Amino acid sequence: MNFSIVRFIVGWVLQFEAAFLLLPALVGVLYGERRPSLAFLAAAALCLIFGFLLRRKRPRQKELYTREGFASVALSWLVMSIFGALPFLFTGEIPNFVDALFETASGFTTTGASILPEVEGLSRASLFWRCFTHWIGGMGVFVFIMAILPLMGGGTTINLMRAESPGPSVGKLVPRVKDTAKILYEIYIGLTVVGTAVLCLCGLNLFDSLTTIFATVGTGGFGNYNDSVARFSPLVQNMITLFMILSGINYTAYFCLLRRQFKDAFSMEEVRAYLLIILGSVIAITWNIHKMYPTLPDSLRHAAFQVGSIITTTGFSSTDFDLWPQFSKTILVLLMLVGACAGSTGGGIKVSRLLILLKAMRKELSLMIHPRMVKRIKMDDHTLSHETLRSTNVFITVYFIILFASLLVIGIDNFDFTTNFTAVVATLNNIGPGLAMVGPTQNFSIFSPFSKCVLIFDMLAGRLELFPFLILLMPSCWKKH
Amino acid sequence: MNFSIVRFIVGWVLQFEAAFLLLPALVGVLYGERRPSLAFLAAAALCLIFGFLLRRKRPRQKELYTREGFASVALSWLVMSIFGALPFLFTGEIPNFVDALFETASGFTTTGASILPEVEGLSRASLFWRCFTHWIGGMGVFVFIMAILPLMGGGTTINLMRAESPGPSVGKLVPRVKDTAKILYEIYIGLTVVGTAVLCLCGLNLFDSLTTIFATVGTGGFGNYNDSVARFSPLVQNMITLFMILSGINYTAYFCLLRRQFKDAFSMEEVRAYLLIILGSVIAITWNIHKMYPTLPDSLRHAAFQVGSIITTTGFSSTDFDLWPQFSKTILVLLMLVGACAGSTGGGIKVSRLLILLKAMRKELSLMIHPRMVKRIKMDDHTLSHETLRSTNVFITVYFIILFASLLVIGIDNFDFTTNFTAVVATLNNIGPGLAMVGPTQNFSIFSPFSKCVLIFDMLAGRLELFPFLILLMPSCWKKH
Repeated sequence: MNFSIVRFIVGWVLQFEAAFLLLPALVGVLYGERRPSLAFLAAAALCLIFGFLLRRKRPRQKELYTREGFASVALSWLVMSIFGALPFLFTGEIPNFVDALFETASGFTTTGASILPEVEGLSRASLFWRCFTHWIGGMGVFVFIMAILPLMGGGTTINLMRAESPGPSVGKLVPRVKDTAKILYEIYIGLTVVGTAVLCLCGLNLFDSLTTIFATVGTGGFGNYNDSVARFSPLVQNMITLFMILSGINYTAYFCLLRRQFKDAFSMEEVRAYLLIILGSVIAITWNIHKMYPTLPDSLRHAAFQVGSIITTTGFSSTDFDLWPQFSKTILVLLMLVGACAGSTGGGIKVSRLLILLKAMRKELSLMIHPRMVKRIKMDDHTLSHETLRSTNVFITVYFIILFASLLVIGIDNFDFTTNFTAVVATLNNIGPGLAMVGPTQNFSIFSPFSKCVLIFDMLAGRLELFPFLILLMPSCWKKH
Repeated sequence: MNFSIVRFIVGWVLQFEAAFLLLPALVGVLYGERRPSLAFLAAAALCLIFGFLLRRKRPRQKELYTREGFASVALSWLVMSIFGALPFLFTGEIPNFVDALFETASGFTTTGASILPEVEGLSRASLFWRCFTHWIGGMGVFVFIMAILPLMGGGTTINLMRAESPGPSVGKLVPRVKDTAKILYEIYIGLTVVGTAVLCLCGLNLFDSLTTIFATVGTGGFGNYNDSVARFSPLVQNMITLFMILSGINYTAYFCLLRRQFKDAFSMEEVRAYLLIILGSVIAITWNIHKMYPTLPDSLRHAAFQVGSIITTTGFSSTDFDLWPQFSKTILVLLMLVGACAGSTGGGIKVSRLLILLKAMRKELSLMIHPRMVKRIKMDDHTLSHETLRSTNVFITVYFIILFASLLVIGIDNFDFTTNFTAVVATLNNIGPGLAMVGPTQNFSIFSPFSKCVLIFDMLAGRLELFPFLILLMPSCWKKH
């Protein structure tokens, strides 16, 4: 491993974080919050200093291979979460370090799981920071850096993006990485601006609109109120549903739309499957819960909201779905595993990976029936490479190993199986709430510090799609070359 | 599909079942049970008649391709379960057909999950039949038939064995299928005889010894008492633990031992991993439960018994493990998924498949660190074929799809998540008891007939390792050729 470049990149990310931290400080000043403003300024200063120290010596070799790319991104996300947790400690709002780290990692990874039983007492600066971390983590901090800085190392920066972008294969929209990053952020900012305007028009104040949209387009799920978004009007809830679902779509579709390639946009297999899954789930849940709410539109609204929230791995709730019948709850648990589209801000296994697995399964069964058949696995008319297939299979293996290993070790806390299982699924897939003791009206404060660390690992590993963090655990990764 | 050969084979299996049904009839006669004896004789007669009708016309073409092999085995197991359920209806001991089918499928598939709240009231003939179905299903009915009959179709009968033998690739011990089948049954009968003798020597009566050993070496789990084997002496329980663990070992190891190839037997990677998993689990659980039992040997005995029972997918219980702390229960749930060795009578994903997946994962991670490395995946010094790898990956996909789909549809019954999850895992892996409402002191009678049918499918699909039943669901399988 080329350690010097990894160090250099982590330092760089810290300096960017310093800049990000100035925004909540500003919010604190605007709302006349003295201590929070100072806390965020202090954290920004620390980021700047440490970033400077790490970047003092330029790396001799600037090549970024997969190993260095993955290690840089994994370590950056960890360091970013650690420094991002400092303001919560400084304001005294989350006095425990593990708790503060959990909250921040939950923010950056767009999980939205909280250890706070009570969020309404937080300062405006902290509330803003929580949702802003979603926005930064949603599209990715490296994508952001690449969009605005001329990067060193030429073509190898794709390895940074590969580590941070969700999906079985990284899709460059245009030949240059920098341009791709720019386009992604333009679409992302566009969705954010339009969403904020829409929520303001629906009667929400600017602060709530902006933070809610940060958490929506980043598919995060932190809210400013203890009941998530249940207090908002049905109209606002429906708009949030719309923007959640839009945020779970593969951004390639938006790119095609912007280029007026309408046919390409609407024929994407993954997007079609994603919308079909949503439609099917909403119908099934509406049928299952229609007796629990006064009118059918109410049932439909809650069904659509929760389905949109869970499949996109946002994690808002408009009602306590832990009280729903088991059939509906099981649908939600399965949607947690499915996740959103690749190339979106959502987490989970991703619809495209499931499509690949289903196609591989169909091929295998057909081969049993017609042994001499030659059949290629295709997606959107492109033949899938052997590499993509293999890494998708390995992804699933790794995914379930991490899931079950986490389930085992947090079992030591002795909570019930449903709580543990959904806690792991909700963090590994970056959703937020689970069921039972981590249901939408509950929080993650019940777990021991050790279990919280396991869940923090799950959140980070889940956001970066497992491999970057796993590579750090391989001894051969740490050998100097 | 060559329908005539499928029909012919199913008829054949029915005639064998007629012979099997005579044994419980004999037991009934010995114990002076009039109605049960007649019930079993009547069922035997029906099997004989239907078998005769199906076999009346000899098939023109005798070739058995994968498709015909898989379809024959899947349909035979289904038909065998249906006819095997008849005696329970005739005696009136299980008046409902779905329940009787559940009990019989649970027997043949060596699951051991029961819908009976009370087994001690059953006739001796029925108790014998329940455990005898385990013994037949354990090594497999086709393996049995092949061992004693000169089969038609020459070399293609391997496709019948492939469908019934557990594991990622079928291992012929000796070049001829018939000889392989013979050797397997010789080892199986050897274990049965020795086991029965040992239990008799430990003070159990012959009936209990024989039926318990049927359920042990077949890794089934039906017992003659409501408390499973909790009433037996610690010595008997320890002997059952030993024979359960022995029955979960790949029979190739025994074959090597018989041939005095001791080095080959003791160096099998799968067997080593299997024994290591057992050792690790027993230590962890003993540590976790040592305060619940008066002495350390008690804790150790219960830990070893439950670990042996669950990993081999037998499903006996010496204590109510649903009362254990969550950590221990989670270990048991994970062992349910792991299962026993390939080429044993146990179910589950199988240790060898997990080893293959872990090796593929390690290779993928190494490739990320050293992109130009060339590495083959090996098992017991043999390079694994691309085919084995691919079908193992597809197996895992299919496995989780069936697991989650079943979880969803039985959710309609509205039991809790733990009950549903462990009910599916316990049937799909042919274990028997799960946790919560399907825990070791509970039973499966709570489910609706529809859910019971789903679980029956899971048991059969799990026993035949998914593909034979899945192939029946493919429309192209039913085309005439």
